[in-house]
Amino acid sequence: MEIHQFFLTLFLILILARILGELFARLNIPSVLGELLAGVLLGASGFNFIQPNDVLKILAEIGIILLLFEVGLETDVQKLKNAGKKSFIVAILGVVFPFVFGVLASLYIFNFSFDIALFVGGTLTATSIGITLRVLKDIHQEQSNIAQIVIGAAVIDDIIGIILLVFIYDYSISKELSFGNTMSVTAMVLSFIIIAPIVAKVLSYLIHKFHGDTLVPGYMPTIIISLIMFFSYVSHAFGAPAILGSFVAGVALSRRFFLPFGSFLQTNEEMVQKVQTAMTPIIQIFTPIFFVMVGLSMDLTVIDFASGHFWIMSGVFILIAVLSKYLGAFFITQKCYQNNSLIGLSMIPRGEVGLIFAEMGRVNGILPNDIYAMLIFVIIVTTVIPPFLLKHYFKFECT
Amino acid sequence: MEIHQFFLTLFLILILARILGELFARLNIPSVLGELLAGVLLGASGFNFIQPNDVLKILAEIGIILLLFEVGLETDVQKLKNAGKKSFIVAILGVVFPFVFGVLASLYIFNFSFDIALFVGGTLTATSIGITLRVLKDIHQEQSNIAQIVIGAAVIDDIIGIILLVFIYDYSISKELSFGNTMSVTAMVLSFIIIAPIVAKVLSYLIHKFHGDTLVPGYMPTIIISLIMFFSYVSHAFGAPAILGSFVAGVALSRRFFLPFGSFLQTNEEMVQKVQTAMTPIIQIFTPIFFVMVGLSMDLTVIDFASGHFWIMSGVFILIAVLSKYLGAFFITQKCYQNNSLIGLSMIPRGEVGLIFAEMGRVNGILPNDIYAMLIFVIIVTTVIPPFLLKHYFKFECT
Repeated sequence: MEIHQFFLTLFLILILARILGELFARLNIPSVLGELLAGVLLGASGFNFIQPNDVLKILAEIGIILLLFEVGLETDVQKLKNAGKKSFIVAILGVVFPFVFGVLASLYIFNFSFDIALFVGGTLTATSIGITLRVLKDIHQEQSNIAQIVIGAAVIDDIIGIILLVFIYDYSISKELSFGNTMSVTAMVLSFIIIAPIVAKVLSYLIHKFHGDTLVPGYMPTIIISLIMFFSYVSHAFGAPAILGSFVAGVALSRRFFLPFGSFLQTNEEMVQKVQTAMTPIIQIFTPIFFVMVGLSMDLTVIDFASGHFWIMSGVFILIAVLSKYLGAFFITQKCYQNNSLIGLSMIPRGEVGLIFAEMGRVNGILPNDIYAMLIFVIIVTTVIPPFLLKHYFKFECT
Repeated sequence: MEIHQFFLTLFLILILARILGELFARLNIPSVLGELLAGVLLGASGFNFIQPNDVLKILAEIGIILLLFEVGLETDVQKLKNAGKKSFIVAILGVVFPFVFGVLASLYIFNFSFDIALFVGGTLTATSIGITLRVLKDIHQEQSNIAQIVIGAAVIDDIIGIILLVFIYDYSISKELSFGNTMSVTAMVLSFIIIAPIVAKVLSYLIHKFHGDTLVPGYMPTIIISLIMFFSYVSHAFGAPAILGSFVAGVALSRRFFLPFGSFLQTNEEMVQKVQTAMTPIIQIFTPIFFVMVGLSMDLTVIDFASGHFWIMSGVFILIAVLSKYLGAFFITQKCYQNNSLIGLSMIPRGEVGLIFAEMGRVNGILPNDIYAMLIFVIIVTTVIPPFLLKHYFKFECT
């Protein structure tokens, strides 16, 4: 990509995301949908000004990683722990239901081959934490009990999603259901979850210790971004999603994360403030790029809207996609059913995670074009509808 | 480039730049040289961990663009105007002397062909504003009279450099000295210089007007980065360097830039503060990437240090490179000769601009390997030595 072309691209992304985001906010529509629309308009479905490329993909990935870091930084670990069991149930059911129903519908309603059925099921298991988080942030609910359960569940979902992807990918190549590889990935991820917070906490202590002692300006942003990049990389190296790494880095720097016997490692308020001051503008620059890129990837031109078969398939799978995630939230105890309902709604957006899964199936020659197009449409619908409902129904939360 | 590989790359760049920058600062060596060394160590001359690629090149370019924006933002336009004539003389002589002496030495001492002589001369005309600016910032002299002259001269130098490149490039293809293309580029650049500040000022007034009125957080960083990207792109489209665009954007937002009859467009102090708060962490993240990338591009492995011919060529051209820039500064009136000397020293670093020129000559098959290697070495020496001298002799400035 030519550098000057990139300047124009970045200008268009940021300015259109800002204009449509603001406009939507004024119309009482979630602003994140304005940013998605900016991507749709700039991409293949719209004026085709911008094609997704490596540079934009990397900047977008930094965007979602920074978003998870920010969430981690604001997380109350005690609340997260309390939510833990519930998050786990929601996450597991949010994988099992969509996967099982997705595979069954593929096999017995539409007679897809087993390979295709596995990929369709896999795509439906995805949860896009980015979309839901942005909506929760926009309505200032990211610290609510519901948000804690949802954030925990979405992160666990991402972990299970990656393990599932390894499993399906292995099968699609070897045609054998092998558990060896899946188990070793699982073991690696679990060891990362145990070790990473301790390492992150020690590093955040060191960051705190050396800060104030520096001669070259810019210590805070460069050292924090270094930490986030390091944890994202290591998380991926352990087979876990990169966002788990940045989330852990954020939690380690948060106000209320204490290790047993580690009280000397405690983060003070001033430090957290400095991290936030340094990181906020950087996060605000990168996150719109992420949402615009999700919109860019929603390529409506692959869809043949005139096909009756398309509408039948889409209808069935949208139903499965919505209900299978929504129902999982009713297997935990909440003060009232409205809360279960809000949790269920929050889990529905498939967003970029679903797009990646579908794209992988297409590139590997497993998903034929019509089924790929159907999945893209299902992902778009499940991504766009819940933010509306969440924004307007959150006032019915029981606290 | 694999995304996760990029996380590791960015981690290594930021952390090594930070560590070596801090270490050098403690040893009373300019910290920017620590960042260059980080690049040398990570690149082909060192452990070869990182190869320059499109993503890094774009991030580095954003780094230098933001650096020039920051300088623009802090610029006192009145001072810049006062310095204008002197800047112009220093810039013109800083192009004419190195070019003429470089071409003459190429032709009559080393018997290079005319094509090669033109590219060698062209490479020697470059001035890296980045290196000098960082040194001036580190010693808190970026607002001094000397700095104003140097900044003005380096920006003008970059403009002349681009026009010269068009001229030489045309010749190397058509073998005719045509002035038509050169003149039209010059006319375009001049029209940008006249129009851009007015447009930038009007836009900065609009930015100011709509600010405070937004529902989606992150207005300041996204809108300012948009403005910078837009002006960098337009500047390039007019045939001027991208950094001229970002510099103009910065000046338009600065405290002391007034248009005739435009007092209603005045920027207030609060606005400038907000711009600085939002932009500082972003600038601090991108600029080290720029300096590390310059280090990465200094590929010492191309040089055959055992060759006597190499040392003779390098010796002669280093002498020409240093003296021809240094002398230009003595054709303007300063309070004392120390000031001329400091201005001359500031103009010597060739940095990334020289590297780009040399690389272009090599890629187009004009510069043979031995002459390319010699130029790389000349650029490295002229880039590394002046920061030391500036840091230690700035105390002799007459004010």
